[in-house]
Amino acid sequence: MRIKPLLIISFLMFSLNSYSQNFDSLNIRTIYSEALTSRISYDNLNYLCKNIGGRICGSPQSEKAINWLYNLLTEMKLDSVYLQECMVRQWVRGDKEIASVISGIVGNFDLNCCALGTSVGTGSEGILSNVIEVMSFDELKKLGREDIEGKIVFFNRPADQRFINTGSAYGSAVDQRVRGAIEAGRLGAIGVIVRSATVAYDLHPHTGIVRYEDSTKKIPAIGISTKDADLLSSSLKVDPALKVYIRTTCHENPEVKSYNVIGEIKGSKYPDEIILIGAHTDSWEIGEGAHDDGTGIAQCIEVLRIFKDLDVKPRHTIRFVAFMDEEINQRGAKKYAEIVKAKNEKHIAAIESDGGGFTPFGFSIDANDTARAKIQSWHPLLLPYGIYYLEKGGSGVDVWYLKDQKIPLIGLDVDSQRYFDFHHSSNDVFENVNRREMQLGSASIASLVYLIDEYGLK
Amino acid sequence: MRIKPLLIISFLMFSLNSYSQNFDSLNIRTIYSEALTSRISYDNLNYLCKNIGGRICGSPQSEKAINWLYNLLTEMKLDSVYLQECMVRQWVRGDKEIASVISGIVGNFDLNCCALGTSVGTGSEGILSNVIEVMSFDELKKLGREDIEGKIVFFNRPADQRFINTGSAYGSAVDQRVRGAIEAGRLGAIGVIVRSATVAYDLHPHTGIVRYEDSTKKIPAIGISTKDADLLSSSLKVDPALKVYIRTTCHENPEVKSYNVIGEIKGSKYPDEIILIGAHTDSWEIGEGAHDDGTGIAQCIEVLRIFKDLDVKPRHTIRFVAFMDEEINQRGAKKYAEIVKAKNEKHIAAIESDGGGFTPFGFSIDANDTARAKIQSWHPLLLPYGIYYLEKGGSGVDVWYLKDQKIPLIGLDVDSQRYFDFHHSSNDVFENVNRREMQLGSASIASLVYLIDEYGLK
Repeated sequence: MRIKPLLIISFLMFSLNSYSQNFDSLNIRTIYSEALTSRISYDNLNYLCKNIGGRICGSPQSEKAINWLYNLLTEMKLDSVYLQECMVRQWVRGDKEIASVISGIVGNFDLNCCALGTSVGTGSEGILSNVIEVMSFDELKKLGREDIEGKIVFFNRPADQRFINTGSAYGSAVDQRVRGAIEAGRLGAIGVIVRSATVAYDLHPHTGIVRYEDSTKKIPAIGISTKDADLLSSSLKVDPALKVYIRTTCHENPEVKSYNVIGEIKGSKYPDEIILIGAHTDSWEIGEGAHDDGTGIAQCIEVLRIFKDLDVKPRHTIRFVAFMDEEINQRGAKKYAEIVKAKNEKHIAAIESDGGGFTPFGFSIDANDTARAKIQSWHPLLLPYGIYYLEKGGSGVDVWYLKDQKIPLIGLDVDSQRYFDFHHSSNDVFENVNRREMQLGSASIASLVYLIDEYGLK
Repeated sequence: MRIKPLLIISFLMFSLNSYSQNFDSLNIRTIYSEALTSRISYDNLNYLCKNIGGRICGSPQSEKAINWLYNLLTEMKLDSVYLQECMVRQWVRGDKEIASVISGIVGNFDLNCCALGTSVGTGSEGILSNVIEVMSFDELKKLGREDIEGKIVFFNRPADQRFINTGSAYGSAVDQRVRGAIEAGRLGAIGVIVRSATVAYDLHPHTGIVRYEDSTKKIPAIGISTKDADLLSSSLKVDPALKVYIRTTCHENPEVKSYNVIGEIKGSKYPDEIILIGAHTDSWEIGEGAHDDGTGIAQCIEVLRIFKDLDVKPRHTIRFVAFMDEEINQRGAKKYAEIVKAKNEKHIAAIESDGGGFTPFGFSIDANDTARAKIQSWHPLLLPYGIYYLEKGGSGVDVWYLKDQKIPLIGLDVDSQRYFDFHHSSNDVFENVNRREMQLGSASIASLVYLIDEYGLK
């Protein structure tokens, strides 16, 4: 990269045989300082959360976000800004959902609930039935059609708190949300209630995708908060004959056009070799999509801004892709991967930020041994910034679609402890993002991009 | 330690030549699982914050906290619970502080302020004067008595955001709070206003100790929030002749008796050899002392609870010391160190938690090379829990007084990014503590105690 005179002068104070290390060290220092002293990325996140808000694919808010991104990247005077069309589903939540316990013994009361993403609705008349609580699909199958038919199934297995990474805790419970409607539907249930897949214990219901299969009747699915799940469970112990009334008017409109937004700084030496940085524009709409994935979007924009404002000219093209539709069908990511393949575009790496704007710990690397070893060789340069971890692992949902093209995939790894307190809930708002934590993520990505641009991954 | 049958059975599945490692690995796994699945420590913190609240030494709240701790530890059926007397200063904040800008040009308005800890008050009539803004003691000295006498000095150097660890950012600004009144007082100033030493940008003023010297007149000192500091600074640019009225009625009463609270599980083999775990009971009173240091207190209690509930009998004595008066003069820590010396009590390690209840990263070790190498040899056992860092460094303010007795001192290192958003402000409340982050800290300390108990530090 072309370096500013100031850095060259500073560098000259160091001995010649440690040229590159000092040089890199100074540049990474400069990148972190720039990220930590500018409020621009935090202001961008604020705008996205407060002026646009939650933005599921196909929604007016998602269009607004696309326009905002396109205009913002254009104003930054990047070398290239363009849209990439994809068709997306258009699911609409409808009226505020209702789930009411009806019992002569424990009384009548409402549960804090939300329809699961892409759920069918109950219709405006709602559904009313007895509730069968289960902790697993095995338990459900053992009960069988006889006990399940015509009932509402309540999946109440909590996320396992014993996992250190909350992603694993989430993974220990989220099958109920994803496949609960299929499994219960196969046995004739008329609806499902799912305990939110989170380590938090509060009143926020969490949404997220529910899957259906063609061969099984689609039944309405709602999430309830962890506290409400305990309340429903204890109520069922007192009155097993209680009923729950559910009313959701969510529905699906025909597919609509949407877009990935792409902005590039062209490489000075290898314009056709791309370092991709990515995040997703869409978010569930009950919150503001702050940590999921507003921070990823703001961080990628910030990486471009840092390169522009420090007047660093990368040798390879740095391409930011704001993917559409991560939450439902990854239509944007699929379209992107399809075009990369069709055009035979060369990517030297693809980095994704989709774990929330928390203190970064490292990078998780899905690449061949050579690329991983190269990244690991930079550990001494990144360690002073708290990048402790550079290991084999997953990358991100969107860049994963590039995997069969043998592109090194990399995910920013951050402190996971608080993510699922916010994830897919109305609690995922700007106020819950700490400025410095998010900035450290931007700087970590920018530093890795800098090193990949300098040394490649071969 | 005596291990529960369950663990021994699990262990037998492993090969004999990896005896100790599997054994340790299983026990540490059990410790983390216990910490992450019990809400007791979080409920304890809740009680301390909400039912007792902020608790500066000598205050009724600090007495209440001592009693609560004594009773709680007694109910836990520890082998020994006792108080250790020390005299403490008794500083009282008095009325809600007032700091008002008076200007015919920018208008009259109030600043969000608080008296700095142990500041003298202005008296009920208050003080009114012009304001001189400086960024450093050097700048102040250059101005000299001529410009300063009779004025209020406004120290406005921000914490340097470029530091990765916010403790260093705090350190880049806190001299103004600690020594500002001395330096300004020497030149005849009548009061000081200090920009809060924090990386946050908000409306919360932060308190904390201000120092005086006998040879210089003590002048009142207040802190203002970072946003108020910018407002005052920009107002001074528009109207350099503006005045500020300050009214604080804080004052100091005669010293009173207070106490360290101590609870022990006696060692089964070496009852006279102590592994100390410590935190401080007292806190500034404008918040709830949640992160500083309620979480440290709750974590140490939790370490004892985990050992008790898992029925693990340590070979060495585990002693929890809840120190009094960390915030002002560390009278509790000094008294403790004095008694250790007088009684020639043998400590094999002293571990402190006083960095807030955030995700732990590691331990900072202030000990000889042998002890440090021993701890570092356990890294593979702790790494799965995110303990990335076991390096030479400081420990904690309270255990530091044991340093001249050559006791290995250890501090729990946690993610620092959010600490100074809360530290010493009304924002340091229970709601800002994440349960799992705090629990991981408890488990990390318990695991280290377990390993030290098993293998010593020699």
